[in-house]
Amino acid sequence: MAVGDDTPGVLHPVPGLRLATVSAGVRKPGRKDLVLMALDAGANVAAVFTRNAFCAAPVTVARAYLQASAGQPRYLLVNTGNANAGTGQAGIEDARACARAVALAGEVSAEQVLPFSTGVIGEPLPVQRIEAAIPAAFAALSSDGWADAALGIMTTDTRPKGCSLRFAAGGKDYVITGIAKGAGMIRPNMATMLAYIATDMAVDRTLLQALLGAAVETTFNRITIDGDTSTNDACVLVATGAAGNDALCDPASALCSGLREALETVCLALAQGLVRDGEGASKFVTVQVNGGREEQECLDVAFTIAHSPLVKTALFASDPNWGRLLAAIGRAGLADLEVNRIAVYLNDVLIASEGCRAGSYTEEQGVAAMAPSDIVIRIELNRGDSEATVWTSDFSYDYVRINAEYRT
Amino acid sequence: MAVGDDTPGVLHPVPGLRLATVSAGVRKPGRKDLVLMALDAGANVAAVFTRNAFCAAPVTVARAYLQASAGQPRYLLVNTGNANAGTGQAGIEDARACARAVALAGEVSAEQVLPFSTGVIGEPLPVQRIEAAIPAAFAALSSDGWADAALGIMTTDTRPKGCSLRFAAGGKDYVITGIAKGAGMIRPNMATMLAYIATDMAVDRTLLQALLGAAVETTFNRITIDGDTSTNDACVLVATGAAGNDALCDPASALCSGLREALETVCLALAQGLVRDGEGASKFVTVQVNGGREEQECLDVAFTIAHSPLVKTALFASDPNWGRLLAAIGRAGLADLEVNRIAVYLNDVLIASEGCRAGSYTEEQGVAAMAPSDIVIRIELNRGDSEATVWTSDFSYDYVRINAEYRT
Repeated sequence: MAVGDDTPGVLHPVPGLRLATVSAGVRKPGRKDLVLMALDAGANVAAVFTRNAFCAAPVTVARAYLQASAGQPRYLLVNTGNANAGTGQAGIEDARACARAVALAGEVSAEQVLPFSTGVIGEPLPVQRIEAAIPAAFAALSSDGWADAALGIMTTDTRPKGCSLRFAAGGKDYVITGIAKGAGMIRPNMATMLAYIATDMAVDRTLLQALLGAAVETTFNRITIDGDTSTNDACVLVATGAAGNDALCDPASALCSGLREALETVCLALAQGLVRDGEGASKFVTVQVNGGREEQECLDVAFTIAHSPLVKTALFASDPNWGRLLAAIGRAGLADLEVNRIAVYLNDVLIASEGCRAGSYTEEQGVAAMAPSDIVIRIELNRGDSEATVWTSDFSYDYVRINAEYRT
Repeated sequence: MAVGDDTPGVLHPVPGLRLATVSAGVRKPGRKDLVLMALDAGANVAAVFTRNAFCAAPVTVARAYLQASAGQPRYLLVNTGNANAGTGQAGIEDARACARAVALAGEVSAEQVLPFSTGVIGEPLPVQRIEAAIPAAFAALSSDGWADAALGIMTTDTRPKGCSLRFAAGGKDYVITGIAKGAGMIRPNMATMLAYIATDMAVDRTLLQALLGAAVETTFNRITIDGDTSTNDACVLVATGAAGNDALCDPASALCSGLREALETVCLALAQGLVRDGEGASKFVTVQVNGGREEQECLDVAFTIAHSPLVKTALFASDPNWGRLLAAIGRAGLADLEVNRIAVYLNDVLIASEGCRAGSYTEEQGVAAMAPSDIVIRIELNRGDSEATVWTSDFSYDYVRINAEYRT
């Protein structure tokens, strides 16, 4: 299941970056499960990674290599089918071996290759099968490879996620293209699952990292499918510089505004695409909390609602069960919460106020508001000026089936 | 569904307390949905209530009346089918009206009657139907009414929960009997769903409250089914004093030790009974976390595991998916967590250590460990001397079905 129609559309090539998607047979023979991205010399790379303490071996290695290469790696290697997580020191060696194999073929140092993995946790990575597929990957590198790569990085995803824009900034035209994967174990913390975004703009590396961090904070870090933060989350932003502009260094410039806006658009589209393809999802739900004393308490309420199994099963049933919403708000831990000031809306229908069902509310209105696949739950706390929005999906039979059957 | 066989056994009468269970037709005609408990004069009563900010009207009223009656209410009235929660000021009036009706029939003041409700949130309480059933309830009062009351307070429970003990303390014999209900919206915070426990021992009121608080902390407050804290949680402990002992006042006495132990036994049996009857539950899971720096971090790890939808669906599938356990531990927010020191056991099988699958582990061992309906997940953090245990259930198709269909 997945919510709505959400095909990526055209994914524009980004000059200075080529991609290849081939089969290494990591978990299933014949599945195109290995993606190689080649960056022209001079590209700057920023990345954010999972904050899960049990981070996967490739996260540890990619983080170290990104630093060792001074933010200028030349290759990104992504395999699906195996997360190389929970694999201890052997997993670290395996991730390094994959990087080394790419480095040999590409005639760069191993530290210039960032490895990424996604898939089943706890199985040894089949390094030899990956090494064997690397020549084919090099042979297939093409600037037109984004759509195939979006397919290649999928695991339980039912469809590829991508977003691509051409934008003008500072009197010049640029392109930005991104892909992402992920449908479960999604509650990004600092980054999400796997996402790769590239622009042809030349951007100073420190500023690139700051722009990525800010964009992730209000997009990938605001989605949740099941509240489980992955061991392998990574979001990578490449600035190839192929557009030939003077490198962007001024965060206050029009050039930077243009990139910031385009980057946020791409990140938001990818993040929402993950939720729309959430495991078993039949609803795409925007939880908007306004009128808080500070942003954090708005986020606390929004995520408590978004993680509540009772709210999520009611959403699956299209049941306007506002009592479960009130119960979730009430346990979100806000100090001095005056429940009588809170108003709860489904889309634009006021369903609860003053601690009970709104006088104007009818069950018919609620049923009508719950019918579409896209639903907005809006909470007005009426105690301040802060606000926050998160996006989530529902809990369905298919959610249980997918996660009970996965790995078996 | 429910895990294992868990019938309450004999529920001994508690001298000084009588019960009646009758039908008021609160939600379904003919269903025995109203329980009245009558306490002899002089009984001391302690109670703990939900910390959900959206607490139900009867919680507000019962809390106030318990204080107004100086801890000596004469009647407890419980209805199922309607939680009288999310009902605003009208709900408060309705709860008071029910108390008043009992007070009139029992010739006491309204403050000597504590009202409790459980069931659907957000519907007006049918006060007149409850009032009409009160004479029948008074006529049916009997000291043998515990088993019927355990049935009467059920909502989505599939079976009654009760526990009863005779115990000797300070050279005298006493009895303690308790009943509880609850199967969903269970993550008690300070109290659980509804539980009523009584002993014939005479106990000082302040000490009684302290004993109840302590017992709840390590029993009801250590269970979770779905992480959702109810709006109506309440746990009540009655000491009728009918045994005729000098009132227990000394927390260091043998008498107090005897009561404390019996009370903890009853609370634990009831709390675990709630989990075993968790909505859609097919597994009863003990999550034991040892070797933490402090108890709170052990609880953080245990509850993160117990709430993880991915862990819960793997449990439903009897899948020894230790990778999901590691991922949950890793996101529990512990500072300076050295993942290589952690060991994870399923029952007594070491499944993961040093950040990966244990060398001694075989998939056959894992499958065998997951086969029974009762499973112990044990985490050794190896960084201190604190420990904590919580109990939970799995997420099944039936969990989704029950919560998608409820109310519709």
